[in-house]
Amino acid sequence: MSTNPAARTLVRPSFEAAFGEAAFIAAMLAFESALAASEAEEGLIPLASAAAIEKAVREVKIDAGRLVADGKQSASIAVPFVAALREAVALATPAAAPHVHFGATSQDVLDTAMVLCLRPCLDEADRSIAAAVASLAKRAAAHRDAPMLGRTLLQPALPITAGIKLARWALALESDRRAIARSRPALAVQFGGPVGTLDSLGSKGPAVRARLARRLGLADALAWHVHRNAWIELLECVARTVLTAGKIAGDIALLSQAEVGEMLESPPHEGVGASSSMPHKRNPVLCAHALAASARAPGLLATIHAGSLAQHERALGGWQAELATVPDLVGTLGSSLDFLDGIARSLVVDAARMRANLASLPGADAMFERNAAGLGTALDEILTALGGAHKPEK
Amino acid sequence: MSTNPAARTLVRPSFEAAFGEAAFIAAMLAFESALAASEAEEGLIPLASAAAIEKAVREVKIDAGRLVADGKQSASIAVPFVAALREAVALATPAAAPHVHFGATSQDVLDTAMVLCLRPCLDEADRSIAAAVASLAKRAAAHRDAPMLGRTLLQPALPITAGIKLARWALALESDRRAIARSRPALAVQFGGPVGTLDSLGSKGPAVRARLARRLGLADALAWHVHRNAWIELLECVARTVLTAGKIAGDIALLSQAEVGEMLESPPHEGVGASSSMPHKRNPVLCAHALAASARAPGLLATIHAGSLAQHERALGGWQAELATVPDLVGTLGSSLDFLDGIARSLVVDAARMRANLASLPGADAMFERNAAGLGTALDEILTALGGAHKPEK
Amino acid sequence: MSTNPAARTLVRPSFEAAFGEAAFIAAMLAFESALAASEAEEGLIPLASAAAIEKAVREVKIDAGRLVADGKQSASIAVPFVAALREAVALATPAAAPHVHFGATSQDVLDTAMVLCLRPCLDEADRSIAAAVASLAKRAAAHRDAPMLGRTLLQPALPITAGIKLARWALALESDRRAIARSRPALAVQFGGPVGTLDSLGSKGPAVRARLARRLGLADALAWHVHRNAWIELLECVARTVLTAGKIAGDIALLSQAEVGEMLESPPHEGVGASSSMPHKRNPVLCAHALAASARAPGLLATIHAGSLAQHERALGGWQAELATVPDLVGTLGSSLDFLDGIARSLVVDAARMRANLASLPGADAMFERNAAGLGTALDEILTALGGAHKPEK
Amino acid sequence: MSTNPAARTLVRPSFEAAFGEAAFIAAMLAFESALAASEAEEGLIPLASAAAIEKAVREVKIDAGRLVADGKQSASIAVPFVAALREAVALATPAAAPHVHFGATSQDVLDTAMVLCLRPCLDEADRSIAAAVASLAKRAAAHRDAPMLGRTLLQPALPITAGIKLARWALALESDRRAIARSRPALAVQFGGPVGTLDSLGSKGPAVRARLARRLGLADALAWHVHRNAWIELLECVARTVLTAGKIAGDIALLSQAEVGEMLESPPHEGVGASSSMPHKRNPVLCAHALAASARAPGLLATIHAGSLAQHERALGGWQAELATVPDLVGTLGSSLDFLDGIARSLVVDAARMRANLASLPGADAMFERNAAGLGTALDEILTALGGAHKPEK
Repeated sequence: MSTNPAARTLVRPSFEAAFGEAAFIAAMLAFESALAASEAEEGLIPLASAAAIEKAVREVKIDAGRLVADGKQSASIAVPFVAALREAVALATPAAAPHVHFGATSQDVLDTAMVLCLRPCLDEADRSIAAAVASLAKRAAAHRDAPMLGRTLLQPALPITAGIKLARWALALESDRRAIARSRPALAVQFGGPVGTLDSLGSKGPAVRARLARRLGLADALAWHVHRNAWIELLECVARTVLTAGKIAGDIALLSQAEVGEMLESPPHEGVGASSSMPHKRNPVLCAHALAASARAPGLLATIHAGSLAQHERALGGWQAELATVPDLVGTLGSSLDFLDGIARSLVVDAARMRANLASLPGADAMFERNAAGLGTALDEILTALGGAHKPEK
Repeated sequence: MSTNPAARTLVRPSFEAAFGEAAFIAAMLAFESALAASEAEEGLIPLASAAAIEKAVREVKIDAGRLVADGKQSASIAVPFVAALREAVALATPAAAPHVHFGATSQDVLDTAMVLCLRPCLDEADRSIAAAVASLAKRAAAHRDAPMLGRTLLQPALPITAGIKLARWALALESDRRAIARSRPALAVQFGGPVGTLDSLGSKGPAVRARLARRLGLADALAWHVHRNAWIELLECVARTVLTAGKIAGDIALLSQAEVGEMLESPPHEGVGASSSMPHKRNPVLCAHALAASARAPGLLATIHAGSLAQHERALGGWQAELATVPDLVGTLGSSLDFLDGIARSLVVDAARMRANLASLPGADAMFERNAAGLGTALDEILTALGGAHKPEK
Repeated sequence: MSTNPAARTLVRPSFEAAFGEAAFIAAMLAFESALAASEAEEGLIPLASAAAIEKAVREVKIDAGRLVADGKQSASIAVPFVAALREAVALATPAAAPHVHFGATSQDVLDTAMVLCLRPCLDEADRSIAAAVASLAKRAAAHRDAPMLGRTLLQPALPITAGIKLARWALALESDRRAIARSRPALAVQFGGPVGTLDSLGSKGPAVRARLARRLGLADALAWHVHRNAWIELLECVARTVLTAGKIAGDIALLSQAEVGEMLESPPHEGVGASSSMPHKRNPVLCAHALAASARAPGLLATIHAGSLAQHERALGGWQAELATVPDLVGTLGSSLDFLDGIARSLVVDAARMRANLASLPGADAMFERNAAGLGTALDEILTALGGAHKPEK
Repeated sequence: MSTNPAARTLVRPSFEAAFGEAAFIAAMLAFESALAASEAEEGLIPLASAAAIEKAVREVKIDAGRLVADGKQSASIAVPFVAALREAVALATPAAAPHVHFGATSQDVLDTAMVLCLRPCLDEADRSIAAAVASLAKRAAAHRDAPMLGRTLLQPALPITAGIKLARWALALESDRRAIARSRPALAVQFGGPVGTLDSLGSKGPAVRARLARRLGLADALAWHVHRNAWIELLECVARTVLTAGKIAGDIALLSQAEVGEMLESPPHEGVGASSSMPHKRNPVLCAHALAASARAPGLLATIHAGSLAQHERALGGWQAELATVPDLVGTLGSSLDFLDGIARSLVVDAARMRANLASLPGADAMFERNAAGLGTALDEILTALGGAHKPEK
């Protein structure tokens, strides 16, 4: 689940597609094809078998509905998937059939397929976040000296500048982007065989795994079937990014209140943010996406954490719960990117309203003058931390 | 999300369908049709408009894909849905178009649709659980005096009987079944209009709402758009049932270990529980379904709890997170029912192995003799609590 | 944990005390005393032993620090606790020592003690919530016709009245109060012995348990050591109350923003809500208590749910996690009561500011006039649902 | 909370002390002292004031109970803490009183104190984990070729070796240890002043912060009051370590079942693992500690994630929830270290029983012979990844 349309409307289409039927089956096929080639290169299966398997992978039509239905018998779609591929190979080249999935286990193909599906999402996230960071940094420079009320515990505190507010958001996002980049080696092949030892490959296990990883463009790693910390660390980076976007969306939604009016996620635009009952409404729909995502991320991540307590050499229940949860957690990142793309494009900053709201704080103007040097220093520090790549043009 | 096939294979098809495109759109249409009829009966809109709306509801073809795509503009599929229905009505009866969705808001149709989708799942759960309870109670009677090792902290403790073990599972499930039944009044219509006050209906709001509830076969209730405790209490009952099934599945999986061998979720059966790499394996796949479900329920429920902190008269983010989560949480109940159906049908109890394992505890036989009266009393209490309806035939 | 002072400052002192050393040890002693008396009445242990145990219970000084330290050896303080009590009994009446804790197990005394500690918290909650409900209902009547902006997705929607806003909060709290009251039978004795069967009591187990329950003022119930749904349902009621308070606190905090200014949790008061750095600040500290509590409740409840998956006849890990979590979850209720007590006493409603903010919505006055009848109907429905007991005086 | 003794008995005393009253107040005092000295060095306050503050810090007796009680008025103990320190300074050196806490805010001292309290826990964790890794690696070498049943989904799968099982645990722990070490720069000073800009320090903010960090032995970092990702990433590392320990504890508990008997957390030892009702019991109490900890970590971390959605320049509710949760989350690490210390010291591996259990798998011996080369390769890869420092002596 969920194929529910009310739920799906919050999902970024490219992220839904990334884990959808076509992409996931393609990823499983890519694993089997690369595995056969790698094993042939190491002399574990005949080159002819590898060729037959690669050909079948290119040509086979897998019926996703049947996989889903048959998978219930084994609590895993890998079993019917391997059976279907083997059948396809057997039709053309019977001798190659036993070499399909040789030495591998269900978890190998499923975990690796999840990794392959996550990869383009992270690529997309990197681009979207970088663009949002650049856009926010540019706006920060533009509003470098625009006075604004700093608010703590939802009460007026002291003056800041719009530049500081915007630059902080940029820096937080940039930190998340860098954290994801640092954790990308967790995009690693899973290949361990039935009990994680690759024992049926004798001493050639590591070499096959290295080849397999290279063919799939993934990192090589020891089997991580039951010790999934690197993978989970990467998913945590995903969740933290969602939470950062949620923090920003929360601020923007608060600033968009009619009584505050200092920012809008985008200029009013016909049909966007419409209500089914109130024609005058302009709901902050981008913020709604990011805030719904950030409300979901902690619980989804908790499931992944709880599910990581694997029994012995393969989990009973926890891993299956993780499989069901990863697309949803990554889906929350997709919703967050929709928000980030939107504000990068169209965030509205109303400096006049900021100045007016600040003025309601007694003595605010004098305070702002007094603190101006400090505020400038604070902004410069943030911009420096943002680094060269995202230095706003002046 | 997720339409991922690895995730979907754990889902009970009837539960996936219950919240799927066709069912959800049908539920939204049923809401609009019943609303128009109710409002016409109270004289708020013309009878002709109600008839036109009911006709359109029967005939309109809603493009789910378009709803999902367009819904992003308003963070809600209700907006394009109402627009599509209004358009359909306008084509045939232009005068009726303004009466579509009259006085209602997006949340009204979405919440009510969720309730309508949940209802058949609860009906199905009631039947499955009752059958499992009856089946377990019957087995409890059959194994009334079969000695078995009681285990605490995973260590041998004292003798119990298989009857007690089985009857306790039955009673726990029966308690959950009753709790769901008690909480069914939360299957209530949501109808409050833009700010929950039905203000555009003047003094007729309550009467329309009561008619609407009756037409939909739901309970009547004050608008619960931002105070969702009754609804959440019902979802908690769902989650607790999942956890009970998970506890039972955990016990069965432990008892199915080769070294223990006291129960099996079903007799070995060709193709069920197969592994993609080990032909001899018979994995406890029903248990895997229930355990994966119970690993997910706490985090999903936490999302629903966190999402319930609504702002003012409609939430920004939390409610949307709930919409995305309810189908998944209810989906875990579906997986649990698959497990319960399976063990009701085919649970294997090996009394001889129980007796053998018990014998390894020094002095166990004497202990069992000494405690026999107490164990009988304990079982009778449980069976009495199970009540007449589920009294096992003797 | 946590004895951390920054954490403790958010805790309601009476709730901290309710689960503290003195109260918890007193509850364990009460269990052992009542158990001995009940067993003597049923002829299972000598009356003289019961008397000796009751005397020791009154006189013994248990060293809590030592229990905590020694409890690590058995992952349970019940083991050193029973040893200490037995030692005290043995000093005065050696023959009675073997009758201490007769037929019981660690979980019996610990679960029952938790129940006993929770009870006064629920009593206190009932009183605080009832007072808050009455106070809010009274304010609702006072502001029955005060126009106010209804807000959805944090944007201006349509007019409501302050009466409706306040009455809804009251009704939500009242529903929670009633739900807790309905679930109070879960304040039940835990008594099952080592494997939950009371087997060493022969056929007298149920009679002893009934006497024990009566003596402790608790409900009688079958051993719920591994099927804890009734208990968890009660804890869910606690959590939902915390979430309702959090929703109200969130609304008040939003309404307290300087730019909105429609409510304050209390009139400005020297020293309350002070900041360590900004003398002008008046932070909404009651709201902070309730909001922090509601941010914690979902995760804490998730732990309790996850921990409920007990293995066989006593859990390894999950139950222990629950023990560590219940005081914290109930503690969040205490923080919420602090908030409710505060707003019952001192919530400030600024009807003039409400009217001014509403006026900024174009056409708001006309809208309000047009909807006045509907708004009155809506308020009356809520007040009716609140029921006689809390009917505001007119 | 919780000062409940049943909860406290699971806590590692050094970890409880690390966040306890004395340590936390000492950390807050250290912050204020180092702040005054740093500001004096930068010429922001007189050297005499810094000296007076440092003297007061050394001599003042802070009444923790009063802080806790008074802190409710501001939802923060920092307010009464700063008042108490200022009062103490004023008594001796009135002119220095205004320089106490100059430019800082409550969150600065509280966040930094939390960081200071966490630091020794991480030091202790590093030592304990390293010792456990070394001990497990040594045992892995000792049981390099001991055949053992690999189990998947709790069913017999294929042979592995005890060496592989033990070495995998070691490697997972070592990865966690390294991840914590990598994230230690998040042990950073928090210093931003009321709105995170250090504005009252003019252009000297960064220099003061750098001095302050150096004096406290912490990393220097931009104010992270509302963008807490680095800090949360460190807490995630803590949680993952708890989960790894939980996975290992789960395996050991399963292997300790009477019917399996392949490992024990420690040799049977009088008084350890005792039951209050069953003298023959030897409960896996170390495993219970680690498993309870791992059942709590996901929910506690979910609270921290949910709490991170800060509003504007200081959170209302979320941050306070985090403060209350960090000591508990870190406390679960303490429980896990108790487990790790115990198994490092005394884990029992029964190779004979392993061989016997494996033999029950048909054809297991032949399978093991056939796979021996692969198993050796697998073990060598793990040991290589463990690296030089933890290379077992041969």
